[in-house]
Amino acid sequence: MPALLYKADPARAERWRVLFAEHAPDIEWRVWPDIGDPADIHYLGAWLAPDDLQELLPNLKVLFALSAGVDQLDLSRIPKSLPVVRLLDPGISHAMCEYATFAVLSLHREMLRYRQQQVEGVWKAHPLIPANQRRVGVMGLGLQAQHILSSLKPFGFELSGWARSEHRIDAVQCYAGEEQLDAFLGQCDILLCVLPLTGQTEGILNRRLFEQLPKGAALINMGRGGHLVEAELIEALDSGQLSAAVLDVLQQEPAAADHPFWTHPKILLTPHVAAMTQPESAFPGLLDNIRRFERGEAMQGQVDRGQGY
Amino acid sequence: MPALLYKADPARAERWRVLFAEHAPDIEWRVWPDIGDPADIHYLGAWLAPDDLQELLPNLKVLFALSAGVDQLDLSRIPKSLPVVRLLDPGISHAMCEYATFAVLSLHREMLRYRQQQVEGVWKAHPLIPANQRRVGVMGLGLQAQHILSSLKPFGFELSGWARSEHRIDAVQCYAGEEQLDAFLGQCDILLCVLPLTGQTEGILNRRLFEQLPKGAALINMGRGGHLVEAELIEALDSGQLSAAVLDVLQQEPAAADHPFWTHPKILLTPHVAAMTQPESAFPGLLDNIRRFERGEAMQGQVDRGQGY
Repeated sequence: MPALLYKADPARAERWRVLFAEHAPDIEWRVWPDIGDPADIHYLGAWLAPDDLQELLPNLKVLFALSAGVDQLDLSRIPKSLPVVRLLDPGISHAMCEYATFAVLSLHREMLRYRQQQVEGVWKAHPLIPANQRRVGVMGLGLQAQHILSSLKPFGFELSGWARSEHRIDAVQCYAGEEQLDAFLGQCDILLCVLPLTGQTEGILNRRLFEQLPKGAALINMGRGGHLVEAELIEALDSGQLSAAVLDVLQQEPAAADHPFWTHPKILLTPHVAAMTQPESAFPGLLDNIRRFERGEAMQGQVDRGQGY
Repeated sequence: MPALLYKADPARAERWRVLFAEHAPDIEWRVWPDIGDPADIHYLGAWLAPDDLQELLPNLKVLFALSAGVDQLDLSRIPKSLPVVRLLDPGISHAMCEYATFAVLSLHREMLRYRQQQVEGVWKAHPLIPANQRRVGVMGLGLQAQHILSSLKPFGFELSGWARSEHRIDAVQCYAGEEQLDAFLGQCDILLCVLPLTGQTEGILNRRLFEQLPKGAALINMGRGGHLVEAELIEALDSGQLSAAVLDVLQQEPAAADHPFWTHPKILLTPHVAAMTQPESAFPGLLDNIRRFERGEAMQGQVDRGQGY
């Protein structure tokens, strides 16, 4: 019987086990580090892969990343012939939409200013800007980003998006490639990053980018901590070039006790909670991919090793 | 030429004047206290009415409240024969939906806990509850409430509503009257109040009501400060019966410097900013009502003097 080896959050292992036992009894369930006979293991479900993957699991056929992004994996150390598949979890997508809508409305309605006013005991209203005069731009136009844009649409924001390649999305002004990046940034009052983290996007949220935004723009980072040059965000907030930021990810997590973001009045910081994989919502997609693989069909979410996502 | 006397926020008077000058030149525009010849004044657009209304404005035909609620008016001192009309401003409705969605998502996603963790420098994630396991109940089922319910629907919350009279709303479990209030409350994880303030709803958010909610429920008050018994909310938060509250209105506004809500970690307090009348979005509805009155037709939003709203 082929086995799947689980090497991710131990707290959620039991929920995964129950799902496999009920819906896929033909696949044996094993939890790292109790791998048993390595020859049985055809599938690895992992957050991080073991270093000596090929020697350890000689019959491994697919690496299922148990996350929407795969930047935590060192793809250069994974055999090119081994398919790496991202997790397409509708629960993740739903949670990302909730967080994105919360973050956009927080910035749109000046909730960081009101949070600071509550700290200072100040009762003062600020002008209310209609949503149709607020331009929200999303960096990254993959499935997550498109769901987020759909969630924002009913509020009447002026929506745009940017990605490396060209996209067409109803009621969203789409920009593509390096050469249209500045034009995109120049019209973003609220910029939301959900890019994948690759060599090309690492550190993309930096001083130069902030300077292209309209003065007083606000930033949301729901991508990865590696997208943001943290010291340059502080500079941009303190100079007034940016007015506020909502951040769910950091370069180093958990944040150090003396990290300046904890106490910055213009930063709302959450501990990487925008979305969390839920076995119950993620399982059907994972099992579907295993069945596709067994039938020799293409899997959904397979990583393009050249692009890195 | 009939005149409209404006007696509300002086800061917005000029924007109203421009709109009347451009779109209703047949109605003269006057600003309190420069009333000119009182005999000309057919319409009063006001937040608060003058005390000696009948003597001061003998030819007054309609009192247009420049607000969605009319609880700030002492209706007992306004002649029964004078129609009182509420402002139906789509801009207000839109702003209320933004604020309500922000508040519900804040509570749904534990943002008051994360705010406090940021203050304390604590990086800790809490379990993510899917929206379809979160029951959101709205008190008040007027137009505002129905728009709010529509805004919340795409997120997948389990929705319910309560009002004095019976309502039928698609995908919303509706409860009616005093006898169904406890059944409604017993299934509200997040309770949102947008009731009108009347003798019957004053102080309705009190200890007895909090005790009917599931333990750990959360409260949003976007109605009026008079709905909430403030000391009893503090008790409910401190005992753990309620987990959090988002409040936009208070018994006394602005809040006193030593008001306990300023510093309470389980309260998010905003300075009555959920919605503000914008002359540009409110004007078409107001002018439409003037034209309806001139033609002898029923106006929209006319207050039922028996119900008080």
